[in-house]
Amino acid sequence: MKKRVLLIISYEGTAYGGFARQKNAKTITGELEDALASATGEEILLIGGSRTDAGVHAMGNVAVFDTESPVPGDRFAPALNRRLPADIRVLRSFEVSLDFHPLHEASVKTYAYRILQTPCQDPLRRNFTWHIHRPLNLNAMKEAAVFLQGEHDFTSFCAAGSQTKTKVRTLYSVEAYSKEDEIVLEVRGNGFLYNMVRIITGTLVQVGFGRTSPEALPGILDAKDRSKAGPTAPPQGLTLLKYEFASIQNSADFLKQI
Amino acid sequence: MKKRVLLIISYEGTAYGGFARQKNAKTITGELEDALASATGEEILLIGGSRTDAGVHAMGNVAVFDTESPVPGDRFAPALNRRLPADIRVLRSFEVSLDFHPLHEASVKTYAYRILQTPCQDPLRRNFTWHIHRPLNLNAMKEAAVFLQGEHDFTSFCAAGSQTKTKVRTLYSVEAYSKEDEIVLEVRGNGFLYNMVRIITGTLVQVGFGRTSPEALPGILDAKDRSKAGPTAPPQGLTLLKYEFASIQNSADFLKQI
Repeated sequence: MKKRVLLIISYEGTAYGGFARQKNAKTITGELEDALASATGEEILLIGGSRTDAGVHAMGNVAVFDTESPVPGDRFAPALNRRLPADIRVLRSFEVSLDFHPLHEASVKTYAYRILQTPCQDPLRRNFTWHIHRPLNLNAMKEAAVFLQGEHDFTSFCAAGSQTKTKVRTLYSVEAYSKEDEIVLEVRGNGFLYNMVRIITGTLVQVGFGRTSPEALPGILDAKDRSKAGPTAPPQGLTLLKYEFASIQNSADFLKQI
Repeated sequence: MKKRVLLIISYEGTAYGGFARQKNAKTITGELEDALASATGEEILLIGGSRTDAGVHAMGNVAVFDTESPVPGDRFAPALNRRLPADIRVLRSFEVSLDFHPLHEASVKTYAYRILQTPCQDPLRRNFTWHIHRPLNLNAMKEAAVFLQGEHDFTSFCAAGSQTKTKVRTLYSVEAYSKEDEIVLEVRGNGFLYNMVRIITGTLVQVGFGRTSPEALPGILDAKDRSKAGPTAPPQGLTLLKYEFASIQNSADFLKQI
């Protein structure tokens, strides 16, 4: 009997062309689908939550798939981990209802972007941070971040050429804080456009440099013009921390987990 | 005119056979000597501080070399960083007196060993932590750690076959503490035997499991027998945090740096 299984997935994106399957690159989806084929003997198509870019990491991305396999939903995590490379792990797996689709459910995603503020690049964090030697003005970045909270048309913060119908999204929080020798930007919202967190980061870094004033942010939003915002920050500083669904049938403890 | 230059070095050890030069493996010393040859046109022999093992990391290892190059001591850091792979960085370089030798100076080294206490291995920290699913008893580990502080013969905590003359070393502090979802062991001492921090870690983990009582530690030290201590913890959890010298001529600000 067919069932639908949800996976909570963590990975280091350094070695991959991104989450979504591609013809000529190793991808997170490709590795997961290969592991699923090996575990079930079926050809399985994975429906992913967030299509993170090459070099971007996740601590809690999600994906679902359908299977006729007798393996119980919660046993897929260990079965897949035995077959996956060490830079991808399924943290948890469980059955959801057959009509559950991650892209059609109300959800909240939380991203963190790490900026390293040290004189020299740190080899131990080179794949997880954007190294910026010059000290950033954190208070100015905090002031600017406030203007991005709430419901806005984020066209200025979306990579040019994106085909998305509406570019209105709601950000529940945009916070900039320091943590040891890093500045972290944490963004929580109901949906994200292509490169949105990286363009927000690039723009707030311009504010931190003093090149853009915090008060310029409303005008950048209103312009609905990608060229008015800052550059796209490099991918390796970005991690999808968690992906929460407002409601999942038959999985009351899901929200406790992520 | 010949001068001696000291390097403060940070590296991720994952891709290397260790710090010391080897015939058939990439090593930190090999990469540094190649970069020095390229920067100076001289064939330079590096004298390293701590010969860390394959997979072990450093945030502040040290090394010295002699050169006839006119490049000022403090310019070697940027010149080498332009030539080094991204997983090795020279944080600082400066001239020291010609009789300065890292292994003959009184010094204090600080190591940290990170243990990850999560249900599933974290792909983002797989190269920097020892993943132990089962919860460790941190209080028992703290109690056991106290017995290792001070001057002792650490034969029981030294890889068998080591040729070192005396196995007496002084540990100024051995601390076990929790940091988010990790347990960190931080050890500070005037010298370390081969695999010593990893054997201390393996032994304290046995204590954390309840297999060894904290009060057994004095007896393990007294036995002077490697087989009485716990297993050697895997390399990737270990990082040499800093390497301090009691006195360096002509470098008053050195101790402020590391």
